[in-house]
Amino acid sequence: MNWKLILKIQGFLLIILASMMVAPLAFALYYRSSDIWALSISMLITLALGTSFILAFKSQKRIGTRESFVSVSMGWILASVFGALPFYLHGSFGPYIDCVFEAMSGFTTTGATILTDIEAIPKGLLFWRSLTHWLGGMGIVLLTIAVLPTLGMSPGLLYRAEVPGPIKDRLKPKIKDTAKILWLIYLFMTLLETLLLMVGGMNLYDALCHTFGTLATGGFSTYSESVGGFKSTYIEVVIIIFMYLAGINFTLHFYLVQGRLKDFFKDREWKFYTGVLVTGVVLISLNLYFSELPLYNDSYMRSLRDSAFQVVSITTTTGYTTADFNLWPSFSSLLLVFLMFLGGSAGSTGGGIKQIRVLIILKHLWHEVKKLVYPRAVFSLKVGDQIIDEDIVKNVLAFFMFFILFFAGITLFLAFQGYDIVTSFSASIATLGNIGPGLARVGAVENYSFFDPYSKLLLIFAMLLGRLEIFSVLILMYSLVTRKR
Amino acid sequence: MNWKLILKIQGFLLIILASMMVAPLAFALYYRSSDIWALSISMLITLALGTSFILAFKSQKRIGTRESFVSVSMGWILASVFGALPFYLHGSFGPYIDCVFEAMSGFTTTGATILTDIEAIPKGLLFWRSLTHWLGGMGIVLLTIAVLPTLGMSPGLLYRAEVPGPIKDRLKPKIKDTAKILWLIYLFMTLLETLLLMVGGMNLYDALCHTFGTLATGGFSTYSESVGGFKSTYIEVVIIIFMYLAGINFTLHFYLVQGRLKDFFKDREWKFYTGVLVTGVVLISLNLYFSELPLYNDSYMRSLRDSAFQVVSITTTTGYTTADFNLWPSFSSLLLVFLMFLGGSAGSTGGGIKQIRVLIILKHLWHEVKKLVYPRAVFSLKVGDQIIDEDIVKNVLAFFMFFILFFAGITLFLAFQGYDIVTSFSASIATLGNIGPGLARVGAVENYSFFDPYSKLLLIFAMLLGRLEIFSVLILMYSLVTRKR
Ligand SMILES: [K+]
Ligand SMILES: [K+]
Repeated sequence: MNWKLILKIQGFLLIILASMMVAPLAFALYYRSSDIWALSISMLITLALGTSFILAFKSQKRIGTRESFVSVSMGWILASVFGALPFYLHGSFGPYIDCVFEAMSGFTTTGATILTDIEAIPKGLLFWRSLTHWLGGMGIVLLTIAVLPTLGMSPGLLYRAEVPGPIKDRLKPKIKDTAKILWLIYLFMTLLETLLLMVGGMNLYDALCHTFGTLATGGFSTYSESVGGFKSTYIEVVIIIFMYLAGINFTLHFYLVQGRLKDFFKDREWKFYTGVLVTGVVLISLNLYFSELPLYNDSYMRSLRDSAFQVVSITTTTGYTTADFNLWPSFSSLLLVFLMFLGGSAGSTGGGIKQIRVLIILKHLWHEVKKLVYPRAVFSLKVGDQIIDEDIVKNVLAFFMFFILFFAGITLFLAFQGYDIVTSFSASIATLGNIGPGLARVGAVENYSFFDPYSKLLLIFAMLLGRLEIFSVLILMYSLVTRKR
Repeated sequence: MNWKLILKIQGFLLIILASMMVAPLAFALYYRSSDIWALSISMLITLALGTSFILAFKSQKRIGTRESFVSVSMGWILASVFGALPFYLHGSFGPYIDCVFEAMSGFTTTGATILTDIEAIPKGLLFWRSLTHWLGGMGIVLLTIAVLPTLGMSPGLLYRAEVPGPIKDRLKPKIKDTAKILWLIYLFMTLLETLLLMVGGMNLYDALCHTFGTLATGGFSTYSESVGGFKSTYIEVVIIIFMYLAGINFTLHFYLVQGRLKDFFKDREWKFYTGVLVTGVVLISLNLYFSELPLYNDSYMRSLRDSAFQVVSITTTTGYTTADFNLWPSFSSLLLVFLMFLGGSAGSTGGGIKQIRVLIILKHLWHEVKKLVYPRAVFSLKVGDQIIDEDIVKNVLAFFMFFILFFAGITLFLAFQGYDIVTSFSASIATLGNIGPGLARVGAVENYSFFDPYSKLLLIFAMLLGRLEIFSVLILMYSLVTRKR
């Protein structure tokens, strides 16, 4: 393991991080809020450390697969540790563990917050908090679509499954070109959503923050009431549309840009994802309408509106809310929890297990049943026209197992710390799946501040684990424990 | 599919079932209880139908793999449908769906009951209820150890994984010989436990009923308070020991009989199973001792005693209780729920996913991590000295997926019917894993009578699905739906 190279890369990353702090600083200066110094000092510290890393660690070697994975995991950790500085130096976010929780929640696009009074936080810090979403979301798209497929090797197999279509269909062979296209798409979507939200009456500041939260499937809002506070059907519809778009594989957005509509619409993961969303919206809206909740059994339109927003928000793992689904009938809240496991598409900013993996698992199970009945027949697992390799199937199954195992372990730890069962399992999936809100004490109108520091540390780890698809973090842990090359 | 042959086999099974009703009838006559007629008439109906099946359906063909699986699934269903007759004809068990629920719960060794006042039921019926456990337990051991390995084919792969050691280690090549040995071991254990329980002060009737419930990991008691009602450490220890033995692969009991202690103690599943139990007992006893429950934080011995009984009872999927673990700290009750998923050993009377499968899954996941770090290395998955075939690993992974999928589906259906989340998921695993008691409204001191008929029907299906390891039931369903050969 070439640690020098890894630390040199971290240096570059810290410098980028520092330069990004200019944006919240600008808003802080504009609004003359109390966080100008906290932001400035954080920027200088991060910049200084990044520069010294680059000066201290020199390596001309090419980066290997394992180094790449370790760099990525360390990158997210350092970004959170230093991204938390403005929160900590200002003091309004509480102890340092809470600040790191908030920053990790931002960079992993989870959106779980420890803030109890969002409106009391100065504008610069809230902007930085939302910006961490946007950076994390961009990071994960670049990673899964541009960087990982070029790495090949066993971990790459995982992502080969995630980029649909044969090799020639991947955006472009070179990382830089692919990154540039993705960056432009992301930027274009950002501008478009910001504009549309401003048309709906938001100011530039709120529009930007909510756009960051939407496109990154993040979920941080500048208001305690989240998107529900705006009480605007127009704003809800705009956000539903962009959450939906953010949950689609960004390769497909590239098809759209190229005008390859046929390629877009024949994508199986997209069909499955859309099917899941429509089914979820219909089921929950009916469950609400036929429930005894006075808000809903009066009006199917209201049931549909709230069901649509919550289902799209939770399935894409955004976590914005316009209704407290903790108070919904247990079928609706449980279905939302199950949708948390599914998550967004591969190569999107969404978290969770990912739609394509669930599709492959379901197809695999159907094959196993057929094999029982026709033991001698040979079946090949296909998604669309593409035959899915045995190794990919095994990798997907292993991923699912790891996900369930970590989910169970984190749940058990939280229960051990004394939290009730529903809080424990929903906090576990809400962080591991990068969703944000859960049920009971971590419900839509609640927050994560009441957890003890050990639980917070574990939840920080859960967010990282989920965002980096478990395997990357496992490689980092394995590399730190073993000394072998 | 040779349906004639299948129905002929069902005829033999019904005759055996009818002849077994002699035993409860004898107790009914001895105690002069009100169920003499219900038992007699049920016996005659079952006998008549069995005989007419044999006369009506003739087939000289040899039985195939699919026919075997369909026969087994249908056998369990018919046994429950006709085993429910005495309950229904007597009237004290309520509507027919409740009677079938109770009978299926018996034959699948689940032990979930719809009875609200057990002491009000006549002795003959209660004996029959416990006897269904004993028959179901014997049935499942014969099936997994004697019948299935001889079937070979893809479904057989599953069970090859479950019978440890190379082929020569399997009890004996012929079904009849193996069945005879297993039968003798089962009978010997029955006599021994009955005797030991009588030494502890139980009468023959109670001793037999509780022995049936223990060895089949069933859990029906003749008292509402379950085993806790006896308030005897001796009885609890005897039952703990026999629950533990019932949760071990019966192949190992054969080793014991042969004096092959070395083969017994080197078995990996046994080691893993014992390790899981010891870990569970220690963790929960500590959690109880350090809790705020006055019964436990006074006395570590009391914590250990109740922890040991509940952990062994739940992990072996017996379901006898001496304490209401629904009132325990959430860590303890949640850990018990997780242990429900693990279940007993393969080839035991226990349900759940089975210890060997969990062991194989954990080893597989560890291999996947190693493969990430050393992509070019080739690892072979071993349990003890035995290399586990790729196909077996895939089958085990598929089984786990199916188990989780059905667990989630059943939970969602129960939530849809309006039950709360904890009741829904614990009733789902308690029936699918053949445990019996769960949490909340299906907790240790509760029962299943409050469920609506649709939910009861689904839970009956869940018990069958779990007991027959999912695949057998899937083959039956597939065969009923498709008309192809
Ligand atoms: K989120
Ligand atoms: K049981």
